[in-house]
Amino acid sequence: MLPRFDNPALRPLADAALLPGRLAFTTDSFVVKPLCFPGGDIGKLAICGTVNDLAVSGARPQWISCGLIIEEGFHLDQLEQIIESMAQTARSVGAQIVTGDTKMVERGNADGLYINTAGVGQMHNGFEPTDPRPGDAILVSGPIGDHEAAIFQARQQIAERLDVASDCAALWPLVEAMMAHAGDIRVMRDPTRGGLATVLCEIASRCGYSMELDEAAVPVRSEVRGLCELVGFDPLYMACEGRLLAAVAPDAAESILDIMRHHPLGGGAAIVGRVLDERKGKTYLKTAIGGGRILRMLAAGQLPRIC
Amino acid sequence: MLPRFDNPALRPLADAALLPGRLAFTTDSFVVKPLCFPGGDIGKLAICGTVNDLAVSGARPQWISCGLIIEEGFHLDQLEQIIESMAQTARSVGAQIVTGDTKMVERGNADGLYINTAGVGQMHNGFEPTDPRPGDAILVSGPIGDHEAAIFQARQQIAERLDVASDCAALWPLVEAMMAHAGDIRVMRDPTRGGLATVLCEIASRCGYSMELDEAAVPVRSEVRGLCELVGFDPLYMACEGRLLAAVAPDAAESILDIMRHHPLGGGAAIVGRVLDERKGKTYLKTAIGGGRILRMLAAGQLPRIC
Repeated sequence: MLPRFDNPALRPLADAALLPGRLAFTTDSFVVKPLCFPGGDIGKLAICGTVNDLAVSGARPQWISCGLIIEEGFHLDQLEQIIESMAQTARSVGAQIVTGDTKMVERGNADGLYINTAGVGQMHNGFEPTDPRPGDAILVSGPIGDHEAAIFQARQQIAERLDVASDCAALWPLVEAMMAHAGDIRVMRDPTRGGLATVLCEIASRCGYSMELDEAAVPVRSEVRGLCELVGFDPLYMACEGRLLAAVAPDAAESILDIMRHHPLGGGAAIVGRVLDERKGKTYLKTAIGGGRILRMLAAGQLPRIC
Repeated sequence: MLPRFDNPALRPLADAALLPGRLAFTTDSFVVKPLCFPGGDIGKLAICGTVNDLAVSGARPQWISCGLIIEEGFHLDQLEQIIESMAQTARSVGAQIVTGDTKMVERGNADGLYINTAGVGQMHNGFEPTDPRPGDAILVSGPIGDHEAAIFQARQQIAERLDVASDCAALWPLVEAMMAHAGDIRVMRDPTRGGLATVLCEIASRCGYSMELDEAAVPVRSEVRGLCELVGFDPLYMACEGRLLAAVAPDAAESILDIMRHHPLGGGAAIVGRVLDERKGKTYLKTAIGGGRILRMLAAGQLPRIC
């Protein structure tokens, strides 16, 4: 697709395209299965996904579009509940759903409901995403992997429930608080598919500097760790839907961490790594037992249809 | 949905939401079946649909998002062809596809490919959509119903082919030419699902003035008329994907018609009706044989999945 669609706004392949007038524009489709899961549903997820793509681009989410593809026979009360989730989630960040479209397909041509959202937002003045620099700190806003773990347990109907809810949340209020240090934040990303490790690898390979991730510092709930051990997943690759990763100037790292920890959306924030003075674009994991290895991007999803 | 999402930009339920800074924003999902049809494919349609929603709002289509939901096993060469259609169609109107997303679903969970597009455009200076007034002329940019007829024949595999291609086209260049008379154009719409009759009924019921449609003046290809007689469809309700309807000031009607007829996208344009000085919001059809009847909005689509 990329060579065919090529243009300056698409080329950076960021979470959102940056348009003239400091507007950010992004889209995502949602095909999560099941439609309702501990901590959210497809409606909440569809708004969070687009809000977060804008938020980590430094843009206040303002206008959202909503395209529904509904399978014939889908229950109206479930649809209403999902629509209400969308409305509530948008309202919680001051965004408006301003345009939409509904298509019906015959039974057997969709899995209940698919949702697409697109969003437009205004970039925060004073924030300019830049490449991370050696010495920068890598922050994560809370425990990783809750979303993928929640989807996994909802889908597998594991006998012994792990009691993990998705972290699914709309992050703009957290980002807005962090914008007090707009000039010290180099880049933010939301670690969805592929998780923390994949996003960090992408940042490293784009900026050219290598990264070090400190496994012992990465917050992971014991339930998520337990599930990963049970089924052979790696928490570092587990998707989040309400966490962000930020590379920030070293001098400001503690202040930004403090802001995050005092915010309801960043209570579990931690400094998890740093940018190395090595131009290899690699990501190294300092393991909890003191060893080291190179992290690579996730090649195939651990689970399909997590969002 | 509307009470739950309610906000000033959504409330007018126009083809596109109007945002501050004279931006227009719209979305559509596309589930057309079959994916390729005479005159186009789902990729061309997905760009035309969003471009036209912006164009009839008086906005130059500039930035487009693209969300693909692809069924496992979908042929890569067909996908490439569809992507190329999207790229070409966007390029033809100077729009850029700046952000996108791809989701895969397992076999049996989609009908090959669904596409969502959203679009952002800048409103033409000097154009302000307003309510039509008594005496205004109603123009249509070409023969109606070609798209739905083409889908119908492609789907039914009628033995005797009618040789109708979809009118599927991106209308911004035509609208841009018409903008020489921006101050004389009250409102534009694209008669997609529900066709000319439904769109005219919507305009009438919103502005409160009644409309008269002159059946003899409505351009319909003989092949489309033949198909409609054969299967019991009414051409006035047949969907177009490359036509627009405009209500314009009476003094400017001939000049605007002239501009349209000299444009490749408006060669078959015609004046098909007028706004009456009656505040009942009804739409009357003056039939070809001199009678009259009231037109109503299409309650259920003549064909499902035409776009």
